[in-house]
Parts: sequence; structure tokens; C-alpha cells
Amino acid sequence: MSISIRARSIPLYINLLLNEARVVCISNKKVVLAYSGGLDTSVILKWLIDKGFEAVAYIADLGQQEDFKAAKEKALKIGASKVYVEDLKKEFITNYVFTALKANAVYEGKYLLGTSLARPLIAKKQVEIAKKEKTTFVSHGATGKGNDQVRFELAYLTLLPDATIIAPWKDKEFLAAFKGRKDMIAFCGQNGIPVKATQAKPYSSDANLMHISYEAGVLEDPSFEPKEEMFEMTASPEQAPDKATELSIKFEKGIPVTLIDKTNKLSYTDPQKLFTYLNTIAGKNGIGRVDLVENRFVGMKSRGVYETPAGTVLMQAHLDIEGLTMDREVKQIRDSLIPKFASLIYNGFWYSPEFELLKLVMDKAQENVTGTVNLKLYKGNVIITGRSSPVSLYHEKVASMDVLGGYDQTDAVGFIKLNALRLKSWAKQKGKFS
Amino acid sequence: MSISIRARSIPLYINLLLNEARVVCISNKKVVLAYSGGLDTSVILKWLIDKGFEAVAYIADLGQQEDFKAAKEKALKIGASKVYVEDLKKEFITNYVFTALKANAVYEGKYLLGTSLARPLIAKKQVEIAKKEKTTFVSHGATGKGNDQVRFELAYLTLLPDATIIAPWKDKEFLAAFKGRKDMIAFCGQNGIPVKATQAKPYSSDANLMHISYEAGVLEDPSFEPKEEMFEMTASPEQAPDKATELSIKFEKGIPVTLIDKTNKLSYTDPQKLFTYLNTIAGKNGIGRVDLVENRFVGMKSRGVYETPAGTVLMQAHLDIEGLTMDREVKQIRDSLIPKFASLIYNGFWYSPEFELLKLVMDKAQENVTGTVNLKLYKGNVIITGRSSPVSLYHEKVASMDVLGGYDQTDAVGFIKLNALRLKSWAKQKGKFS
Amino acid sequence: MSISIRARSIPLYINLLLNEARVVCISNKKVVLAYSGGLDTSVILKWLIDKGFEAVAYIADLGQQEDFKAAKEKALKIGASKVYVEDLKKEFITNYVFTALKANAVYEGKYLLGTSLARPLIAKKQVEIAKKEKTTFVSHGATGKGNDQVRFELAYLTLLPDATIIAPWKDKEFLAAFKGRKDMIAFCGQNGIPVKATQAKPYSSDANLMHISYEAGVLEDPSFEPKEEMFEMTASPEQAPDKATELSIKFEKGIPVTLIDKTNKLSYTDPQKLFTYLNTIAGKNGIGRVDLVENRFVGMKSRGVYETPAGTVLMQAHLDIEGLTMDREVKQIRDSLIPKFASLIYNGFWYSPEFELLKLVMDKAQENVTGTVNLKLYKGNVIITGRSSPVSLYHEKVASMDVLGGYDQTDAVGFIKLNALRLKSWAKQKGKFS
Amino acid sequence: MSISIRARSIPLYINLLLNEARVVCISNKKVVLAYSGGLDTSVILKWLIDKGFEAVAYIADLGQQEDFKAAKEKALKIGASKVYVEDLKKEFITNYVFTALKANAVYEGKYLLGTSLARPLIAKKQVEIAKKEKTTFVSHGATGKGNDQVRFELAYLTLLPDATIIAPWKDKEFLAAFKGRKDMIAFCGQNGIPVKATQAKPYSSDANLMHISYEAGVLEDPSFEPKEEMFEMTASPEQAPDKATELSIKFEKGIPVTLIDKTNKLSYTDPQKLFTYLNTIAGKNGIGRVDLVENRFVGMKSRGVYETPAGTVLMQAHLDIEGLTMDREVKQIRDSLIPKFASLIYNGFWYSPEFELLKLVMDKAQENVTGTVNLKLYKGNVIITGRSSPVSLYHEKVASMDVLGGYDQTDAVGFIKLNALRLKSWAKQKGKFS
Repeated sequence: MSISIRARSIPLYINLLLNEARVVCISNKKVVLAYSGGLDTSVILKWLIDKGFEAVAYIADLGQQEDFKAAKEKALKIGASKVYVEDLKKEFITNYVFTALKANAVYEGKYLLGTSLARPLIAKKQVEIAKKEKTTFVSHGATGKGNDQVRFELAYLTLLPDATIIAPWKDKEFLAAFKGRKDMIAFCGQNGIPVKATQAKPYSSDANLMHISYEAGVLEDPSFEPKEEMFEMTASPEQAPDKATELSIKFEKGIPVTLIDKTNKLSYTDPQKLFTYLNTIAGKNGIGRVDLVENRFVGMKSRGVYETPAGTVLMQAHLDIEGLTMDREVKQIRDSLIPKFASLIYNGFWYSPEFELLKLVMDKAQENVTGTVNLKLYKGNVIITGRSSPVSLYHEKVASMDVLGGYDQTDAVGFIKLNALRLKSWAKQKGKFS
Repeated sequence: MSISIRARSIPLYINLLLNEARVVCISNKKVVLAYSGGLDTSVILKWLIDKGFEAVAYIADLGQQEDFKAAKEKALKIGASKVYVEDLKKEFITNYVFTALKANAVYEGKYLLGTSLARPLIAKKQVEIAKKEKTTFVSHGATGKGNDQVRFELAYLTLLPDATIIAPWKDKEFLAAFKGRKDMIAFCGQNGIPVKATQAKPYSSDANLMHISYEAGVLEDPSFEPKEEMFEMTASPEQAPDKATELSIKFEKGIPVTLIDKTNKLSYTDPQKLFTYLNTIAGKNGIGRVDLVENRFVGMKSRGVYETPAGTVLMQAHLDIEGLTMDREVKQIRDSLIPKFASLIYNGFWYSPEFELLKLVMDKAQENVTGTVNLKLYKGNVIITGRSSPVSLYHEKVASMDVLGGYDQTDAVGFIKLNALRLKSWAKQKGKFS
Repeated sequence: MSISIRARSIPLYINLLLNEARVVCISNKKVVLAYSGGLDTSVILKWLIDKGFEAVAYIADLGQQEDFKAAKEKALKIGASKVYVEDLKKEFITNYVFTALKANAVYEGKYLLGTSLARPLIAKKQVEIAKKEKTTFVSHGATGKGNDQVRFELAYLTLLPDATIIAPWKDKEFLAAFKGRKDMIAFCGQNGIPVKATQAKPYSSDANLMHISYEAGVLEDPSFEPKEEMFEMTASPEQAPDKATELSIKFEKGIPVTLIDKTNKLSYTDPQKLFTYLNTIAGKNGIGRVDLVENRFVGMKSRGVYETPAGTVLMQAHLDIEGLTMDREVKQIRDSLIPKFASLIYNGFWYSPEFELLKLVMDKAQENVTGTVNLKLYKGNVIITGRSSPVSLYHEKVASMDVLGGYDQTDAVGFIKLNALRLKSWAKQKGKFS
Repeated sequence: MSISIRARSIPLYINLLLNEARVVCISNKKVVLAYSGGLDTSVILKWLIDKGFEAVAYIADLGQQEDFKAAKEKALKIGASKVYVEDLKKEFITNYVFTALKANAVYEGKYLLGTSLARPLIAKKQVEIAKKEKTTFVSHGATGKGNDQVRFELAYLTLLPDATIIAPWKDKEFLAAFKGRKDMIAFCGQNGIPVKATQAKPYSSDANLMHISYEAGVLEDPSFEPKEEMFEMTASPEQAPDKATELSIKFEKGIPVTLIDKTNKLSYTDPQKLFTYLNTIAGKNGIGRVDLVENRFVGMKSRGVYETPAGTVLMQAHLDIEGLTMDREVKQIRDSLIPKFASLIYNGFWYSPEFELLKLVMDKAQENVTGTVNLKLYKGNVIITGRSSPVSLYHEKVASMDVLGGYDQTDAVGFIKLNALRLKSWAKQKGKFS
């Protein structure tokens, strides 16, 4: 026996099958596509329409430099039945970026998670649109090798357990048709899709209010030093001003609530404005570049370069005010959970019971983290110059030693002796040091 | 009934009692004192002799700026029966500093543990001298409020479980006699002990090859910004050269084995020379200052300022080469143990079964951490510019994707779906997102 | 110069000095003593009065077998100015015992923390009484070698930071006066304090609603097998009934809310009655004995034997219902925190910021732990026979595989391949297995 | 355009494609199949031969009740080109079972990992055979929903990174052909493969020297109580002897080295004989049954019932001797890593860098775990009656208190006060308890 199937439909069929194992006919289905206005998602938008989908384009504004109006028009021109442009900036800063910063969440010691934090929010809004549009089909343009596919899809499947996901970069037919940028440009030519005349950059990047990430292309060689012209949010330390900018940042329960630029006599309290200004001033002072080889959830290592100006300053300032206001043992427990917390964000488990659990820990640990940090920004440096707090646990500030009922130096004798007891027993037993 | 005792002998008696509960007569006992040549330990040395001890002075050379010959002469002049001057620099760098750096050991996110690392080595050598001198009496000049007393005494009691510790700053008579610097200077005058004419600094400091720490005095106000003249090992970023210094550092199993200064065309492989030169060049470039409020083991918060130029560079470089060469899950486990590892060092548990256990973890995790990091030092910044390794786990370097048996992008479909399975179950159950 | 002091007053003076360094005159002070009615605290009560204190006796009823009326009369007879008898049973079960059980808190793998849980509650009420009586002096009869002194005193000092603690078993005069039981009996004879005619047991014990602990005396030899007659709450498995008792226990958010004894046709929902009945029926069935060598906070090892009948059954049942209702990753994180949580209870840190933090984790992790466990008690065994839950995360109970959107076995291919990716890279690099 | 392919070859082709993406022609390839002699792997063996493979059958003897000679003959009759029967019992006990037991490795608080431990060893030997047979094709009969597929395949891909895995239960054609036991029996009938006349059991089971596991079928209802006749290795507590069996077990560095049955006057030192006898005597005494709902790595919950007689006794005894000989802080760190260690075994990461790391921790922690435990087995109970050790850290055994340089009860005063310092600061700040 032999079977005959139209070659073109096989890959999508298989892809859908792998996702849900029950979609047979896709005609007349509506799909919500996370659309950026760029080459890849423009090709995907057209491809989805060619497959018979009614395609709704969804553009998330997270503060990236983009002409959203032009992007919307482009989507409509390609054939989108509707376009949503959603301003997610405020929610991004307050519910995602600050959640990470107040936990001191850093992935593998260096990456401040700028892209990882954006993905679950983009997906959440996409699911809301899908529900509004009464469909369970969602699509994205992330590749099959990266982290973003996982972040999008885990979010979709948790927030919309019945979701059917169309991920063209994991579809064999799509992959066969588009082997590179050239194929996509040709496809655009054939389909009247405008392509920016600009030269392709020799790397790929992702931008939002928190950061810009750079990876792939020339950066794939981990010994290659990025060119200065690549960076968009930060001056190099060399090009930064010769004079420091003096700031003070006030935190309440771990959240920055006031930023004062003493040098320029400016003050901000609105979270989005505060963060945006801090990006500007920190970027100008050359702060926030990071270059590392990191471990992706899908199992491979990857080289990434990041610019996170405001995030870097806030992280340093926040860590400092914790010193004054956080109990030692709370800090010890909290610190031991940061690697896990950061991994969950990086790996796409923002909407998960374990993340809910750890988020609660992080919030509770910030209960007393209130106070003001003074610092200077200077050519790449965040220099802490002092801190104060109305709820300090530093005894000089509580009032004086008397508040604590006094400290008798001879107490240390018993303290040390009892701490030494098991060590002496161990040393005797092992005959280690005798 | 009334008792009569010579007032002068009570406090020491009580102190010894608290320590060992069996010393009755101290006449003719020999004690080994960790002696610095400074005011405090000079007073203590004389005080011990006055108490009837034969006092052996022990001076540890850990690379601090000190005229060891003059210190030795001073001790003999005061009445020490013998003086040991021990050069511990090499052992300090290779067995203590590198042990911490290869574990990325940072206390409370900022402090590189320069003093904490020196104390157990000083104590180890002191115990060796005590054994040689056939005594179990050891003495130190650390205060009763700080961390160092704990580090010294836990080490003494582990390495020499029969040790009798004389800690004058926890002795009530001593405390009563010496209420401040003035009393000590007067005592020196009465006893012909030379006192340096220099003005007392408005803070206390501790120096060794790894760092200088500053605390107390004016620094007790956590909002006070230290004066520029305080710093001894580092230029300020502002005063650092306008041109970057380019280095490359080669690590083998987590240990720096070669430092090349490309700018100045210099190269070092000897650990002590490598570290010393890196201190110079990093210090010159304004690298390694840290200011924090930290939590002492004895229960209080304390403000510390540190300069750790070479340590800061090595820490950054080491973290970077780990990215290329360390397995993701090994890193995750290792990272979760760093806070504990750093606390054990900070709290004085260098010689303990739990530290031995974690040291083994840290060593094992470095098994594959071999490779070279390129970086620039510039006005306070350690800027990583690239890295390479003969044992990289980054697939581009292993050879190519084929080495890994290929990566099929459609694999990610199943990967994500099975990761989502329990999330979907949870989401359905909670009705959270429906 | 010689000093003269009345010998009798020295030790207390020193003891107080060590505690607060400022009490000079103790005349006319009121002290609240945790009083049990037994030999030790009766001696202490009289001794405090002899020292000039007005002594308020406080008897905590935690369910131990005791004639509280007789104890009260005895305290008054000895000279207490007032006696409080506080029924803490309900609060003990609901706020202390259940808090531990729902966290599966077990110290060092075996000890269910019966005494550790009682101490902070006893101390809390004692502080309340001290406040009511307008004094800051509190006293207890725990020894200077054990855990209970720490539990009492950390609680006092946290709940009443100005507390002055009188701990006679750490007072040198008291210790000198009372070297053993014989001295105390003689003292009682001299002071007209009634002493029970009963023979002293060759071990010491502590009882409350949750458990009885046995330690010291003959048990100090860790190879000594306790005699059968020692046990008070449990039959031996050998003497237990030949027929099993069938129970079902319903949990809501980790707390037992209904106990049904199917064999005896009984049902309980009141926490205290439920727990008390479960003690009876589990004890009868020989359940809950534990014998271990444990590590005290003060640095020594100690041998303890415990009977915890109801606690043992609830722990097993609770662990079982978690299997059906708790997410895997939540469980993994929670499990890794249990040793710390149990240590905090054991070490006396019930009232601490870190315990507050972990308690929150434990509560959150129980959010979905609701359901019913069927089990049999038989000669020392708790045999789980089945479980069910309205909020099960076990897919058969959610409804069927379809609820989860299906499970395609081929998904496992990609799942395994991506999990293997870094392992292959590692294996290739190490040449380990080739 | 349409494509025509022989339907029969598609699924295998796709399956292989999913695995390695490069196999086109499978003719004349040799494959090593993990063969049990049962229905499933007999069908798979024939199916592989029908697909054109030269099939080598590999039978692993891990102590399960099986007629290995008959199984070998059956494989040859079906058409295997060669049959390997490998006795892995000794290696299983010493390198796998003991590795888990000395780490107290228990998955989710209850499962002793009997099957999880066998899989990596079976796979290791299978890879050795594949190398000997100069092929990279390996096959197994584990299903696509379970844990065993992961354990087998992660081991294959790590030990033989070029492995091509044939997993028929994830092959769509195979799944279509064999929808149940009936299809397989019919296939056997058509192909002359002998099928045992015995009735299929209403659950599936897996047996080895360590345990028998039961799952699926009637057990899928988590409230269903297993029938007594299901159990093969253990008597029920009810049917166990009325008289206890007294044992003593001697451990060296965490490994059982001598078992003495005092009741029956027997003694064993050979690991395999010791373990086998302990299985017999513990099983007879009704010890080692466990019933739980567990979390599979592939994302679903599953109900499992286990019998692990010897493992249960050794685990209890080992935990006990640790109490006497393991340092408190080592235990605390070690305990916090057990959930991760057990998960790695359960999830199939036996051959991984992170498991190597944790195995080292577990070994190091056992350094001093040497001593003898006395215990009684009685109707399901493992009753510890005493323990002793030549390297005890319990001070009574080291010699006496004097060995430790004495314990002065007043030391506890300072110890507690310094531990309370930060709590007082916190309490004051929060105004919590005032």
C-alpha cells in the first residue's frame, strides 16, 4: 500500500500533530501572531495566511525603538485581519523587572535577564488577545534552538492549556523553504512585502526597556570582541563623561521609589520614568555592559552580550541597602535560592507553582528593605558612597548598644567555645592535626 | 565569711577559667602571641610578661607593609623570650586565596574575604610554633566584638584541642586597665615601649597581600563616604590612567597559571609574583574597592570598606572562563553552595569537616575550568573581551554541531511539551488562568 | 589591696552580670519561674525566694500527666507569691504541632521535635505573664548543657528584649550547692518542701501532648536498649493488638481536619480531640517509638528516645497526600528546605525572621494539599492503603489524559534528546566513556 | 506534486530521523536489544528482525526470578543472531545499590529507587556489548510515558554519544500495530513465538535483587488497595513471625560489611550474600512495602507500590550509625543535597557531571561512618536497639568530657546571648513582640 499526500501540507500537519495530536483541518482558523514588524515575523505572517489562517498580528511595546505605527500598517498590508499594538511598558517595569531586581536575580552570575523577563509578559497579553479573539491558535517567530521558544510556549500552555502553537522555525516545511535571510528577502519580493534597505547586522539583537541583548553571527566566536558600534544603550567607559554623576535611590520593601540625580538636580518617583531616566544617565556613564557564555535550557552553551544600564545600577544599590536592613539568616536562605529563582526566569517558568513559591520568599525577604543609597556613576562604575535607613538593623542606627541590652565582650568566650565543641571532637577523632 | 584575693590576678584567673576551667597557676608558662609590632599587641606582650608568662612573639608576614626586622627588635626589647617571623605569603596565595577565588567565594555578595582567609593560616602557623615550643598557651590581640577572635580561636581549638587561649580584649582586668588608645600609650611610656609618633588613623585597618580592610571609627556611620586618602592599594577610578591595560589570564582547573600584560609586555607564572603584579596593575587602574554593611558571626552588623585589586580581577576572569567550560547543572549546584562556603570562611570554620566537604565540591567543580580570558582594566572596570579554551563545552569550539550528533529543531517541540505537562495540570486544577 | 565580698552573693551577681551587665541589687525584684511541680524547679523556686526575689510560679499545661492543682498548692506552700496554671494544649496542637507536621519537619531524619515545639510556646506565655506582672525577670530550670535553655532564652530575649534571665543551672553558686539529686532532697528536707516518695527514674523525661522524650542516665550508653517499662505512651509492637485498626484522615491545606476510625466507628474533627484520640489508638497499636543519637545546638551529641504516636501517623499520612496533590518542583524546593526548617525549631529559633520566612514557604507549599488518606495501624506499622483528593494533580483523577491535551509518546524523543545534549558534550570532552 | 513511500517503513524512518536525522537505509545494520524473555521484548525482537536488522539479544541478570537459559533459547528461536546473558548482580549491589544507600537516597521521601538504580547499569553493559559488536544501534522495550526510557536513553547517549536508539514504543507504526496485549499475542502466534500460558497480571512489575515494583493496571486508581497476593518478596506484617529476629549490621565508611543474624546464628560479609540473605529475612518479617504517588521526570504523576526488604533495613541502620559518627554540619549540608541526589538517580542522570559531583559529596560525608547497629526485625518494624562505633563523635565514647577540654555550663550564657543579638535587633525594629 502506498499513501499520497500533498507534500506542502505535511510539515505543518506534523508540526501541529506534535503539538496537539488532533488537529486535522486548519482551514478558517484564526491565529494570533506575536509580530515585531521585522523580516522574520513578516514572512511568518504571510506564510500563515497562505496556509489558510486568519492572522491577527500582535505587537508588544516594551520600550524597544520601533515605529509601531509603521509596523501596524505593514502587518495590515501583508494581510493581517487585525493588529493589536499593546503598551506593556509600565507592567513590564513594575511586575516583571522589579520582581527580578528585588530578588537580585542574576543568571549564572552575570545576566540580568532582560529578555527572559519580557517573554512571559508578551505571552500573557497574547493569550488575552487569543481569548478575546476566541481562538486557541498562537504563533511566534522564535527559533528552535533558543530560549525564547520555551519561554513563549510554556507560558502559552500554562495560561491557555488548550493552546495550539504554530512555531514555523520548528516546522520542517518552513525550515526547508527558508534556509537563510536571502530566501526570506526573495519571498518578500515575490509577495510585495517591503524590506528595509538597511544592511543586515552581523548579529541578532533583542531590545526592551530593560536591556538590549546581542548574540549569534560574529558573536558566536566567544573570543571575538564586540565592535564599539554595536552598543546602543551605553557609551563605552572610555567615552563616558570625565565627571561623576551623583545619585541617591530610595527603596521601599526592595522597590526603588525615588531617584534623585543630585548632579543634574532631577528627581523621579514614577517607576517607568525613574527607570527610563536611569537608563539614560547610566548609559551615558558607560554602565551595564556584560559579555558571557551562558547555558541555555535547551542544552547548549551560547555567547551573549548585554547592555542593562538602569538594571545594573538598581541591582548594586539594592544589594547595598539590603546590607543595612536585612537579617543575616534571612539573607543566607534567600541567597541560596537566587540561582534557582534566576534559572526559573531564564528557563521560562514564570507561570509555575515553584516560581510562585519562590516569589513569595523573595517578597517576604524584602519586608524590611527600606532605605536610601548614595552612589556615583562614573565611567562604567557604580560607586556606593553611603546608605541610611529608618529601619536599619545596624546597631549604631537603632540607637546605641544599650538598645540591644548591651554587648559584653566576655560573652564571646562561651560563644566560641560552644561553637568549637564539635570541632574539637572531630579533630580528636580524626587525629588530623595532632 | 569573706575571701581575699589579689585583685590584679582575678580577671586573668576568671578568663582562663572560662576558657579551660582548670588552670590554677600560670607561673612559668610559655605563651605564643600573634604579634604585629603595633600598639595593641605590644601592650599585650608586656602585659603577658607582667603576668608571669614567658612570651614568644610570632610575626606573620602575609605581605602587609611592615618593617619586620624593627618589629622583631621591638618585641625582644619589650621582653619576648624569642621572636618568630614567618613568611606565609606563598602559602597564603596558593592554599588560601586561590581556594576562595576558584570557588567564587564572596561573602554577602560583595566581600572577597581577604582578612577571613588570612586568619586560619596565621593560627595554623601559631599552633605549629606552640607545638615546637612545647606549650598549649596561645594569645592574640583581636577584640571581643569582631570576627577575628572567632577565626583565631576556632582554629586554635581545632588544631590544638588542648589550647589555652589568652584573649586580653575579653579579659575584664585588661579591659578595665585599657579603656582606649590613651591608656595604652601611657602604659608604653611607663614601660619604655616605643610608640610611633604618627597620628592615629580615624579607622582601623588590616592589610595583607590580598587586600586592605577598613572599619570602625569614622566608618561606623554607614552614610559616611570614606576620604580618598584612606585608600592604599588602589587609585580612585578618577585618578586611574586614561588608557586601558590589556591582560590575558590563563586558568588551569580554576587556578590562574599565567598572566600576560599585553600592554606592558610582561608575563607571570609564579603564583605569588602573578598575584603581586596583578595587585599593582589593577590597583593602578582603580579596581577593587568595595563598601558594604556586613553581618558578623557574633551577631551584629558592621560596615567595612575593602580594597582587593588582584582578587577582583581574578574573580571576574574566573567567573568568565567557567561560562565556557563548566557544565550547567554542576554550576547550578555549585552556585547554590557558594553562600555557605563563603560564610564558613567568614565565620572562621576553615578547619572543619563541613569546610573540607565543600572544598571538595569546589575542587571537583573546577575539573574542566581551563582556558584563557582576555580582558581590559580601565578606571575601575574589568572588561571581559573574549575567552577560549581547549576543553570548551561550547559546541562551536568542540568542533561543530555534528560532534553532538546534530540538533534537530523539532526536538524542542517534545521537550517543551513534556516540561509543560505538570504546568498544564496545575493550571487546570487551580483554574488560575482560565 | 584586697577585696571582701559576701561569698554567697558572688555567683548570682556574676551570673546576672554575664546576662545583663547592669543588675547590681536584686532586692524586691519579681521573677516569673517556669515551674513544673517537680524536684528541680521546687528547689529553684525556694532558692530564688531566698535570694530576695518575689517569685511568681507559672505552670504550663501542655497535656503532660500532672496534678496541676497539687503543683499549684506546692508552689504556694514553698512561698510563691502567685501561681499561674495555663492550659496551652489547644494552641500547642494548632499553632505549633501542626506547623511542624505540615512541613514534614523531622530533625536529623528521625526526631519529630515534640519538646522543641513546646518550649517556644511555654516561653511566649511566660513573657506574657512577666509583662502582666510588670517584671523583666524570668527563670527556668533547664540545664546548661541541653537544648531547652537555648529554646527558652532565645524566645525570652526576642519576645522581651529587656529580659533578665535567671538560669540557676548555669549559676556557679547554685551548681556548687546542688551537685546531685541528693543535695536537692536534703535542701527540701531542710526547707519543708514535700518530695515524692517515688524512686527516681534512671533517666530523665519530658512529656507533652505530642510526645514523651527520654534521655540521660542509663540511656547515655548509646548501645543500651531501653527497658520496656520505660515507655508510657505506646505499647510495644509485640504487645499491640493482633488486629489492625483502620483509619482515614482528611487533610485541608496540609492540616488534619477529620479523623475517622473505621474499626471502632469513631470520628473527630476538633484538633485537640483528634490528636488526643490518635495518640491513644496509635499508642495502643505500638506506633511512634524512635531511638537516635542526635546533635545538640550547643555542640555535643546526645542520645534520645521518643514516643510520638499521633505525630508519627499524621506525618506518614501527610507525606502520602502530598504525593497526590503537590507539584513536583514545589516538592523539590520544599524538601530541600526541611532540614533547615527542622533545625531552626530544634535550635530554638521559632521566633526569628528566618523561621517566619520558611514558615511562609511551608504554608504556601500546602496550598493544594487537600485530600483523604486511608491507612491501617498494626503492631508498629502505619500502612497506607489508598488516597484520594478533589484537587489531585494525578491525571487519572483530573479526568483523563484529554484534560491535559493529550500525551504523545513521541514527545519523549525530543525531551530526552535535549536533556542529553549537554551530557553528550560533556562525555565527548572528557573522553570519559569512549 | 505528491510523494509515494511504502507505508510500513515510514514510522521507523521518522523515528530514526527524530533520533539522529541521518539514517536513510537500515538494511544489514546490527542492533543490540535489551531483552527480558517476556512478551514485549520478544515481539520487539521479531519486529526488529523483520525490519532488516541483525538483532543481538542482551539479557541482564540483576537477580530477578527468571529462567535465563530458557530466555536465551527463546531469543535464538525468534531469530537473534547472538544472545548475551550478563550476570550484573555483584556490580549492581556494590556500585549502584550501596551508592544510593550510603547517601540515604530516597525519592520523594519514600521510594528507595530499586528500578532507577538498575537501569544505568543495564545500559552501561548494553553499550559495552554494542561496542564489542561494533554497532551504534541500541534498542529497548520501555514505554514512551515512563521513566525507564529516559534512564536508558540518557545513559546510551552519554556512554555512546553516537548511539542510534530504536525505541519501538515511541514508534508510530509499532504503536499502531500493537495496541494491546492481544495484538502482541496474535503476532506471536503468527510468528511461532511461544507465549506463556499464564494469565496476565492486572498490573506491571519490575524485579531485581533490590526490589520489585508494581504499577499500572488496577493500581492506577490511587485509592485501590493492592491485594495481598501481589507481593512476592515480603510477607505481610500480619503473616510475619510472632517472634523478632535480632540482627547486628556493621558499617565501614557507610557500607555494610558484616551482617550477623543473632537469632539464627548466621553471619555474612560478602556484599551479594549479605544483601540476599537480608532480603530473605527482612521479607519474611514483613519489612519494606511502600505505596506512593510519585512524580515522573516526563511530567506526570504515577502510583507505585514497592517491596524493598533489605534496602529498607540497611537504610534505617545506616541512618542510625550516622547519628553516632557524622558531624552535625556535614549532616546538615549532606541532608540538603539528598533530594537532588535522589532526583538525579530517579530521572536517569547517573552518568552526568552533576551526579559525579554529588557522589563525591556523599562519599566524603561517609568518611567517618563506621560502626555497628543492633536491631530487631518484627512484623514490618525495623527496631533500632543500640549502636556503637570505634570512631564515635558522641563524647561518652571518645573517652569522657575531659577529652573535649571540659564543658563549662556558663559558656552557654555567652553562646545564647550572641545568638540572640540579631534577634533582639530584629524584634526591636519590628516592634513585633512589644
